[in-house]
Amino acid sequence: MKDVLQLIFSRRSIRQYQPRPVPRELLIDLLRAAMAAPSAVDKQPWEFVVVTRPERMAELQAVLPYARYNAPAAIVVCGVPERAQNEPTGSYWVQDCSAATENLLIAATGLGLGTVWTGVYPVTERVQAVQKVLGLPEGVIPLGVILVGYPAEEKPPRTQYREDRVHWEQY
Amino acid sequence: MKDVLQLIFSRRSIRQYQPRPVPRELLIDLLRAAMAAPSAVDKQPWEFVVVTRPERMAELQAVLPYARYNAPAAIVVCGVPERAQNEPTGSYWVQDCSAATENLLIAATGLGLGTVWTGVYPVTERVQAVQKVLGLPEGVIPLGVILVGYPAEEKPPRTQYREDRVHWEQY
Repeated sequence: MKDVLQLIFSRRSIRQYQPRPVPRELLIDLLRAAMAAPSAVDKQPWEFVVVTRPERMAELQAVLPYARYNAPAAIVVCGVPERAQNEPTGSYWVQDCSAATENLLIAATGLGLGTVWTGVYPVTERVQAVQKVLGLPEGVIPLGVILVGYPAEEKPPRTQYREDRVHWEQY
Repeated sequence: MKDVLQLIFSRRSIRQYQPRPVPRELLIDLLRAAMAAPSAVDKQPWEFVVVTRPERMAELQAVLPYARYNAPAAIVVCGVPERAQNEPTGSYWVQDCSAATENLLIAATGLGLGTVWTGVYPVTERVQAVQKVLGLPEGVIPLGVILVGYPAEEKPPRTQYREDRVHWEQY
């Protein structure tokens, strides 16, 4: 599959969406992709909240001013630190949930959907506001809100490859 | 591209490799995929060290006992926190570099290569050991070591989708 690079380069942050809803089966496909991600010691420390009702989207976006794009759906990727691989010096939950998120974005691209990853964690007030809106318990941390919909803007595929960021054999 | 799910499900952690080396142009393709990842405020706070020389691989693996698989190459994904989007309550660098890593793993799968993501950060002694071997300055943090090569084991595509991890409209 030589066009894997084309697929990955086609994943762009989409901020304008068509009004038509995303079929439930496609949303589930995105979650199947997310949960195919690797996680440290295979702990899979993730939970997902899917938002599609307009009034619920409005409540979510009311607390996230920087995420007010007109997408018909959102998938909130959450981590459960106590379920993750934890070390004395920190946890792997952010890496695990970020890998799941990136899988979701790539899958959306391949399925003709657009997405934008809007950050929540580690901004405490955003974490708490999203927890409140979605009824998340304290131990379930929203990492990011992924807006999902059919794109109403076109962006060319691209990488931001920079040779000076690559070091051979040593730094 | 309906087979995007098949691609994503085919990314499995590979721990047995063929001895043949990975062509340099394919390693660069992986880095082009990695640097197509999104990052908070487009800060791209990443650096990559590619290791292919057998003696260098041996040095790296000497300090990472859990990464001693017979891969001919490794890509060390590093973050530069001071270059990332930083908030008073934390940094986005881990999320950014994890997204880049996952892109790299998916690209490898599509190009017929196998990979396994072995964690370094947040384990302080591993971070320091890898910094020493690769000559990384203190502000360049190795997030993970990705082993890369042609697979010598076959694993079926799969997701670990669980319906009970999905919540509709609220938790």
